[in-house]
Amino acid sequence: MKITLHSPVDMHIHFRQDAMLSLVAPLSAQHFAGGVIMPNLIPPVNGVERLQSYTAEVLEAVKPHAFEPYMTLFFRDYTEQELAAAKPHMLGIKLYPAGATTNSEAGVREIGAMDRVFKMMEEQGIPLLVHGETHGFVMDREREFCAIYRHLATTYPNLQITMEHITTLDALRLLDEFTNLRATVTMHHLVITLDDVVGGLMNPHLFCKPIAKRPEDRDALLQAALAAHPKLMMGSDSAPHPIDKKECPGCAAGVFTAPILLPLLAELFARHGALDNLQAFTSDNARRLYSIDPPPKRVVLEDIPMTIPASYNTVVPMWAGRSIGWSVTEVV
Amino acid sequence: MKITLHSPVDMHIHFRQDAMLSLVAPLSAQHFAGGVIMPNLIPPVNGVERLQSYTAEVLEAVKPHAFEPYMTLFFRDYTEQELAAAKPHMLGIKLYPAGATTNSEAGVREIGAMDRVFKMMEEQGIPLLVHGETHGFVMDREREFCAIYRHLATTYPNLQITMEHITTLDALRLLDEFTNLRATVTMHHLVITLDDVVGGLMNPHLFCKPIAKRPEDRDALLQAALAAHPKLMMGSDSAPHPIDKKECPGCAAGVFTAPILLPLLAELFARHGALDNLQAFTSDNARRLYSIDPPPKRVVLEDIPMTIPASYNTVVPMWAGRSIGWSVTEVV
Repeated sequence: MKITLHSPVDMHIHFRQDAMLSLVAPLSAQHFAGGVIMPNLIPPVNGVERLQSYTAEVLEAVKPHAFEPYMTLFFRDYTEQELAAAKPHMLGIKLYPAGATTNSEAGVREIGAMDRVFKMMEEQGIPLLVHGETHGFVMDREREFCAIYRHLATTYPNLQITMEHITTLDALRLLDEFTNLRATVTMHHLVITLDDVVGGLMNPHLFCKPIAKRPEDRDALLQAALAAHPKLMMGSDSAPHPIDKKECPGCAAGVFTAPILLPLLAELFARHGALDNLQAFTSDNARRLYSIDPPPKRVVLEDIPMTIPASYNTVVPMWAGRSIGWSVTEVV
Repeated sequence: MKITLHSPVDMHIHFRQDAMLSLVAPLSAQHFAGGVIMPNLIPPVNGVERLQSYTAEVLEAVKPHAFEPYMTLFFRDYTEQELAAAKPHMLGIKLYPAGATTNSEAGVREIGAMDRVFKMMEEQGIPLLVHGETHGFVMDREREFCAIYRHLATTYPNLQITMEHITTLDALRLLDEFTNLRATVTMHHLVITLDDVVGGLMNPHLFCKPIAKRPEDRDALLQAALAAHPKLMMGSDSAPHPIDKKECPGCAAGVFTAPILLPLLAELFARHGALDNLQAFTSDNARRLYSIDPPPKRVVLEDIPMTIPASYNTVVPMWAGRSIGWSVTEVV
């Protein structure tokens, strides 16, 4: 079996900075025509100058691959002028509740206090990307946040809101309720549950935020992805951490999947007889929802086995060392 | 503040073998007058000869402390003669569903096939100790197992059954429904939830089986312990693993608490104004429920701060490095 994907895009990636950026950016850029680059650096990308300098760093790191970085700003209390100045240089603004995940300490403490910014974003046509978790019990955080998604979607009907990396049936259901909501979902949340993280031996390399949820959540997300739900986009949330920040007493949240996304997705979609929908899930839906036009890139995948490397330099990927049934055989 | 405990017993301990036994047994024996020693060794303690030789190893390891090891056999398809021969040398038989936790591969695959053994244990008056988890989703395993507890309690009304290390409100409720059910609960399940394991950074040293559950489960267990529920006994499930089996890609299940149990419990009970109930929770309930008479040992605890060591040789304890408000000041 074989499939050719046209200009796949990864709608949620962590490229980090410096040496980590140099390591991971090419691993995305080799297989993808573009991707949405997260702004949770230290310090966060929260001004137009930093946005432009980080864009330059990313462009340098992805060379010589054809790869369009869709940049994002870190949400804060921006002025109208700041938003207008940043708009041409970015895809949207990413909102983190303070402390919800890696490097999110500068995030929002009180969403209700940000009405002015949401209103301006709606008026200027700037999409809002959201890490949707409350500070409640870990298994309830996304479900509880759905009330905030409802509030935002209702209050700002023309604000385009992306629920990032959804992990629950609750969030999935919102997609069909509100026209201005869309979502990304990771590859790993289509295949793992909390059982894979802590059900047998505990696996730090599958620990991420939001945490993997229940089997019924995973199954619902998988069915939606296999059916190429028109408002669902593949966003890997590929989040590299060096091994000494994973296999330690305080393990950082993040699953590194960038180099193995397309082989694993091809295998998954093929197993469920849904290969024809992989183009929509990995590219067409995102192009339509964001009106983006990534550079041409043809990625051929075949059912030729490969072994996932034990590590990429200091970073251990998901399912390190495991053999999978598909691989990328050509990129043009 | 100050409290004197008389012959505290730990009703669920993993002493392991060889060097680990030598390391951890004295850490329990210094503070406790006795404890129930788990049989999930490699190979399991599943015959009277092995039971006697392991007893001798344990007695050697706890020297010179006065400490009574209440030994257990690993459940299997015993004959009537085997049970009768083992009975004088043990407290009861521990049943593990196959694969439910560390070294449980030799456990029971089909509980229904063991009716004959349960019947003989009931007739001979041998208590049954149970690791009560199904093979379902990690957060549901104990709740699902409650149906099996009900079946056993109903079918063998004279079999004394201990639900080991309960973690849920569901299991707690069974205590009041069936006269022949009693339970142990760990110190750590009185204070942590899944949030402490994977809600912030992931902490391998708080990873155990059964996994810590929801806040409402923890709160219900804590209230029952503070009230010295007459059918609830402190059983630490202190389970040492060397650090390289914890801070690694496949982290073993187990929280090591033996040396810090009494200070942490004293602090917890004092904070809730329940110090008077600590004697029942850590000793009297167990003595009454099992008709045991541990050697005399007087343990004095005072609200004098101590810092939990970073490690005991190769083993990292719960809350390593943290300062706590109470310590053991005298043992006679």
